[in-house]
Amino acid sequence: MKGKYEEVTVKTEPIFRGNFISLQVDHVRLPDGRTATREIVRHPGAVAVLALKDDKLIVVEQYRKPLEKSQVEIPAGKLEPGEDPEEAAKRELEEETGYRCESLKRICSFYTSPGFADEKLHLFAAESVVPGTAHLDEDEFLECGEITFEEAQRYIAEGRISDAKTILAVYVWQLYRLTGSFPG
Amino acid sequence: MKGKYEEVTVKTEPIFRGNFISLQVDHVRLPDGRTATREIVRHPGAVAVLALKDDKLIVVEQYRKPLEKSQVEIPAGKLEPGEDPEEAAKRELEEETGYRCESLKRICSFYTSPGFADEKLHLFAAESVVPGTAHLDEDEFLECGEITFEEAQRYIAEGRISDAKTILAVYVWQLYRLTGSFPG
Repeated sequence: MKGKYEEVTVKTEPIFRGNFISLQVDHVRLPDGRTATREIVRHPGAVAVLALKDDKLIVVEQYRKPLEKSQVEIPAGKLEPGEDPEEAAKRELEEETGYRCESLKRICSFYTSPGFADEKLHLFAAESVVPGTAHLDEDEFLECGEITFEEAQRYIAEGRISDAKTILAVYVWQLYRLTGSFPG
Repeated sequence: MKGKYEEVTVKTEPIFRGNFISLQVDHVRLPDGRTATREIVRHPGAVAVLALKDDKLIVVEQYRKPLEKSQVEIPAGKLEPGEDPEEAAKRELEEETGYRCESLKRICSFYTSPGFADEKLHLFAAESVVPGTAHLDEDEFLECGEITFEEAQRYIAEGRISDAKTILAVYVWQLYRLTGSFPG
């Protein structure tokens, strides 16, 4: 599915390789023969979990350095190399919140910022979970909680929930409440 | 809203300044006193429009270099410096599709990837539009079309629609069809 507007790479300029992301500038040939540059962030991919417990959404609050503020989000994390997204989702849910789930339903997978990054996020849903013990990564500081649907809507209005995956999950939750099943 | 888990910047290392994004590495002090690095992409922000015409969604298909494939998305684009998001949304809709709208409803604003980027996207909805003439940026190559709700769902299942803003917009459209009004 290259499409007739394909941009052909003439040269790739590596700019940065970090612990988490890398950056390159691709010089491309446009469909009309001219050239342009594309600034591209490479990312390992991520998973997130819409987990419900007694009709409440399990969330974590953590500091997001790029935004310079704390935000309330659904549990999420990066994919390890070669890791199955569903296994990663179960792992992140348990690591960040202590909750475990037997099975997950895949809701959708999406590119977060296709204009400049290849990050793909896989969103799963768990209708029921069992409590356990959280065990965070060493540089991870966050707090777990549970919020009602009305609280989720208020948090979006107030900006305490403000990221794509969590807002998308709240819309999915609303569809689940209206139709009795998850989309996807 | 800094929160108790605030990460204090010790040093900011500028890595790259592009035409579109910039990259920096922040050295931060964690809540337990240790230090860590955060790789951060700066982005000017963006707008997107869920525009309906005779119960069809107006979409554009374009090549996304970071994904190396063409994708179907709702009309969207970067904010110009100092530009009002609603004006930008009207501008992008007209530039990319030719359609004009009198008024837009704000649905939500979200950070696309709060773990590594500060990109904030403002999503608007237009219940009706009038046709006009598209006028693309000089390095923009895309095709405009209209799809039914069933086509939108099939495109998501097939991966032809695969970005956060468009999948989110399709869920918002489904809520609009179920409840008679847009959320937000």
